Amino acid sequence: MTVITLTTDFGTSDGYVGAMKGVILSLAPHATLVDISHDVPPHNVYHGARLLATAAQFFPAGTIHVAVVDPGVGSARRGIALRTPQATFVGPDNGLFSAFVSQRLVCVSLTNPVMHRHSVSSTFHGRDVFAPVAAHLANGLALTELGPVVDDPIEISEPQPQRLREGQLRAEVVYVDRFGNLVTNIRPLVHQSVESMNLRLVVGGVSLVVHRSYADAPPGGLLALIGSDGYLEIAVREGNAAECLALGVGAPVEVWGI
Amino acid sequence: MTVITLTTDFGTSDGYVGAMKGVILSLAPHATLVDISHDVPPHNVYHGARLLATAAQFFPAGTIHVAVVDPGVGSARRGIALRTPQATFVGPDNGLFSAFVSQRLVCVSLTNPVMHRHSVSSTFHGRDVFAPVAAHLANGLALTELGPVVDDPIEISEPQPQRLREGQLRAEVVYVDRFGNLVTNIRPLVHQSVESMNLRLVVGGVSLVVHRSYADAPPGGLLALIGSDGYLEIAVREGNAAECLALGVGAPVEVWGI
Amino acid sequence: MTVITLTTDFGTSDGYVGAMKGVILSLAPHATLVDISHDVPPHNVYHGARLLATAAQFFPAGTIHVAVVDPGVGSARRGIALRTPQATFVGPDNGLFSAFVSQRLVCVSLTNPVMHRHSVSSTFHGRDVFAPVAAHLANGLALTELGPVVDDPIEISEPQPQRLREGQLRAEVVYVDRFGNLVTNIRPLVHQSVESMNLRLVVGGVSLVVHRSYADAPPGGLLALIGSDGYLEIAVREGNAAECLALGVGAPVEVWGI
Repeated sequence: MTVITLTTDFGTSDGYVGAMKGVILSLAPHATLVDISHDVPPHNVYHGARLLATAAQFFPAGTIHVAVVDPGVGSARRGIALRTPQATFVGPDNGLFSAFVSQRLVCVSLTNPVMHRHSVSSTFHGRDVFAPVAAHLANGLALTELGPVVDDPIEISEPQPQRLREGQLRAEVVYVDRFGNLVTNIRPLVHQSVESMNLRLVVGGVSLVVHRSYADAPPGGLLALIGSDGYLEIAVREGNAAECLALGVGAPVEVWGI
Repeated sequence: MTVITLTTDFGTSDGYVGAMKGVILSLAPHATLVDISHDVPPHNVYHGARLLATAAQFFPAGTIHVAVVDPGVGSARRGIALRTPQATFVGPDNGLFSAFVSQRLVCVSLTNPVMHRHSVSSTFHGRDVFAPVAAHLANGLALTELGPVVDDPIEISEPQPQRLREGQLRAEVVYVDRFGNLVTNIRPLVHQSVESMNLRLVVGGVSLVVHRSYADAPPGGLLALIGSDGYLEIAVREGNAAECLALGVGAPVEVWGI
Repeated sequence: MTVITLTTDFGTSDGYVGAMKGVILSLAPHATLVDISHDVPPHNVYHGARLLATAAQFFPAGTIHVAVVDPGVGSARRGIALRTPQATFVGPDNGLFSAFVSQRLVCVSLTNPVMHRHSVSSTFHGRDVFAPVAAHLANGLALTELGPVVDDPIEISEPQPQRLREGQLRAEVVYVDRFGNLVTNIRPLVHQSVESMNLRLVVGGVSLVVHRSYADAPPGGLLALIGSDGYLEIAVREGNAAECLALGVGAPVEVWGI
């Protein structure tokens, strides 16, 4: 039983996700379908890429991840299947799989029409190309049957923090989650307890000490911590830091003690 | 392993969908549950009917589709199970299965209480009638065990475009999807490339050429195209046409060259 | 095949739910994952507890329900596994399982690190503690392997209606569902038809007769009825009572004839 996960920006108020599920189950009735998310903000490839990075690493070896955030559908952008030692990713070649590009064993372009639906629309490759390709892979098809090898799958580079001086970095908010947590692009190496590291942030004019967990602030209190993916983030305990500070993706963050 | 899909307007912030899933799995533990959508706008039977039309056609033969958009629950409206060569649909008889009525082999009214939960509420037939009926069907129950044949399941007729003169139709927007695409009630027969057909639309005072795909407009640009279900639609590339034009369901659209 | 359900306040626009699913399927590949809800309002333990009460009772015996609404993650709050004759509940000990505490056979504290992920974050026990524990239970692990017995799992007590005089209660709205139905904390014993009971409510200055179903009011009409969980609720037929009355959780409701 192969696991096929689905990640899209299709939302859940239309039939598009259902159409993809139907195509997959028609071709690979024994696949186990798992929804990762269908609420990637529309056309936001970067958000989708981070979301996949958060989730995909935890799935069993051999999982097939289909992801469709695809503003370039119908253009010359390629469709790809990218295999790592852990998983296979199927979707548009637009950076959605950035977190996994460097781990790849092989990546192919989905040019073989035999592996697609009979009639491929120019607006819905999720249903007509990526879903059937994932189903065929679940049935054991070799990756090389899908099309020629691609040497340069697109990788979106994370904005890098800048060192201002010894012990001080300029970072930025790169992701805001459903709780309003402001996730930065700094992933400190934690060799010791966070408290003893004495990291501090300045964000939106506010200075914050980095704590261990939400519970280290009073309810409603603003704090910084290292989130579950290892990145420094700004949070409000039982609240919403993005709303509280009126900040979002791109907001500058200064980090001291690093 | 029979696939049972679920489509409702229950949203996902309450326990109603879970209750239905529990009832089904208790009676048919080997069924494969698949969520199509739980975000049909509340009480919007027409939206649900279109959503089902988009998704259900792609599922394996023998799939059971349970759908509950049911403003008439507790009234005299019938519950039905409608079988086509491809699938069985279970839910209220209110037009939700309009796209499949003409393909039916048989349709029955769900009057046999033995196939319902022991105690049927007057407000939640999804849990008490439709879920157990779907489970029994997955277990192999004959449709005729559910109740008497119904000859007149309700069919919502699509608003028909009007021909204004040779080559010109007055259509309307009948569906708005999550991306803000305005889907019309015109489904052109495409015998050639869309571009060579030279179709044009006028909507919200704007004149648009029909293109092949979103990628044929610049980002933010308004365009018309034939969507993945075959209907003419108005879109904004990487944007939201419904917001951009401030239009929704019912908005008139003139089509030229058809 | 054991069913593992998931209920969280994680929303569906991040990778957190997917991470939990991946962890479970990696450890228990034959478990059947079922989403109950990921749209519990953030940090709203009481909402989550009611939602679970609505849904969990309908699942097959032996189902494992993982629920994570966990504002106290990283604090001293315990993680627990609570077993009833029907099911096992895994999550934070904060009242989320209140509806099932009195039915418990045994409850344990999740202190055995062998059953957790190798590295446990201080912010995401859903992924690092509750998901692996649920997977191990699905694989047949004895509850007592997880940690010591807990005698006092937290139970949130429902606000109790007050008797004002014979036949009159002061109740309150305790839950608002996606349709805007205002659910109260009164669960009348119905020995006869609701209509013959002649119950009346006063809410927001409006007096309402209790009817059998939504269909007993005209479209847009306000009514009271007994909802599918047995509680008195205020609804608008094909509308939204919470918006219509501008009321929410905590709003007082007087009930006459009870």
